[in-house]
Amino acid sequence: MAELVERMRHLQDELTTALEALDGGARFREDSWERPGGGGGCTRVLEGGALFERAGVNFSHVFGAVPEALAANLPGEGDRFSATGVSLVLHPASPMVPTVHANFRRLERGAASWIGGGADLTPYVLFEEDARHFHRTLKAACDRHDGGWYPRFKQECDRYFWLEHRGEARGVGGIFFDHLQGEAERLERFLVDLGSAFLPAYRPIVERRRGLCFGERERRFQMVRRGRYVEFNLLYDRGTAFGLSTSGRTESILMSLPPLVRWEYDFEPVEGSPEASLLAVLRRPRDWAEES
Amino acid sequence: MAELVERMRHLQDELTTALEALDGGARFREDSWERPGGGGGCTRVLEGGALFERAGVNFSHVFGAVPEALAANLPGEGDRFSATGVSLVLHPASPMVPTVHANFRRLERGAASWIGGGADLTPYVLFEEDARHFHRTLKAACDRHDGGWYPRFKQECDRYFWLEHRGEARGVGGIFFDHLQGEAERLERFLVDLGSAFLPAYRPIVERRRGLCFGERERRFQMVRRGRYVEFNLLYDRGTAFGLSTSGRTESILMSLPPLVRWEYDFEPVEGSPEASLLAVLRRPRDWAEES
Repeated sequence: MAELVERMRHLQDELTTALEALDGGARFREDSWERPGGGGGCTRVLEGGALFERAGVNFSHVFGAVPEALAANLPGEGDRFSATGVSLVLHPASPMVPTVHANFRRLERGAASWIGGGADLTPYVLFEEDARHFHRTLKAACDRHDGGWYPRFKQECDRYFWLEHRGEARGVGGIFFDHLQGEAERLERFLVDLGSAFLPAYRPIVERRRGLCFGERERRFQMVRRGRYVEFNLLYDRGTAFGLSTSGRTESILMSLPPLVRWEYDFEPVEGSPEASLLAVLRRPRDWAEES
Repeated sequence: MAELVERMRHLQDELTTALEALDGGARFREDSWERPGGGGGCTRVLEGGALFERAGVNFSHVFGAVPEALAANLPGEGDRFSATGVSLVLHPASPMVPTVHANFRRLERGAASWIGGGADLTPYVLFEEDARHFHRTLKAACDRHDGGWYPRFKQECDRYFWLEHRGEARGVGGIFFDHLQGEAERLERFLVDLGSAFLPAYRPIVERRRGLCFGERERRFQMVRRGRYVEFNLLYDRGTAFGLSTSGRTESILMSLPPLVRWEYDFEPVEGSPEASLLAVLRRPRDWAEES
């Protein structure tokens, strides 16, 4: 575990350095925090950048007594746990550039250990080429470890990021896995490898879309869709629930929320519009990695 | 029950007529909806008014099989339930005018029946006189029925609208009660009486504050505080959970969310500012009705 903790710290450094360069202007600020029950973390947030309206990259290593609220839902037995990982959420200012989320974590409870995480893409304007690139990059990272993982994790992602009350997915998906158990070193190698696949999966999309023009209409739609992002994170997300119920630092957990959000009563996109095309895809997830 | 259903419909009419007059410009639009499992409702929403950025007044009367997810949390026994009520959330455009929420409902399951509801005020600038007026008006309505209710419901309100992860209340409170059982006619009379107390509790506050000037600073703070409102409704609110898990109409349930919202990482008001004074009160609820 100790080695992975260091690798996760290092992943946070790597990511924030690359994201600052990508943004081209703003810098991350850093807040270290301690968890009352044991452990702590380091939150890095960049706001008001040239590219990112908000970008957050969180490292944490927490441990201690298993919180009562979680005892029944965690694999393994025993009343001690530990968890380490990196999570990030990037909210670009331009609606032409998708929001992205990724998470890489390892947990232990008693003799049991497992990994969880994934990465998923939330566009406001659908560029099919981007969805394909994102999925294929993640698929390649999975395939290097187990040929069965990508199809399984892709499906789990579609299931996990599903807003039941809206009948739609949060975005075009990616991969998601949780409670993945097996030979510890092999799983750690996969986690680190996946962490390294994040930038190659996302950066080319940013580079292709950041220069595109947009207007009030696209910005408004982005803010309405960000509302769905908030709904998902607060109503369904296990990571958010885990963080809040283990007395995690609230600002570090909720840095995932978008900076500026709209709710419009009964919003419906115009038939045949780009917004309607995106929604059609969100209502019926596609097999991006397989499409040509 | 049938008579109360009609009274609730009538309360919706009364409220929307009065709120349109108060707004002075915009009109409510109406959407009737049916619930797949039985019953339905009528949602009225006004957006972009002179006073209200969004106002929603919902009537519903739903019934049918007790949803599995709720069975353990509802009083009574038996697999059929029915519920009727009115709920409203008013989000003024001006940060000088507080947001308000109210709800009046009656439920039945098997032989058991109970009422629930209340009203609570969420200011963005603290005018102590307003908090006192709001609480005293609700206290008077309670006192006409049972002298023990206001102190009890006031405390329940402070407890219910508490954001544990922020260590603060949603607003300056009001009253809240749930699962209140007793002689059915008496409870219905209280519910109707409380419905009639809403406008006298809120309207004078609007009239006093709607003409006040404000700037970017107050508006920004309002949007950040609205973020807390969203957090409460999606993380904690029983009514939202009840609606979404009984296949209620999503747009009617989530009309409670504010129209435009901000999340700022680690937002802290300047010491000694009006924003800091409000926060101090939210962190430590006061006995408004008793203060002179």
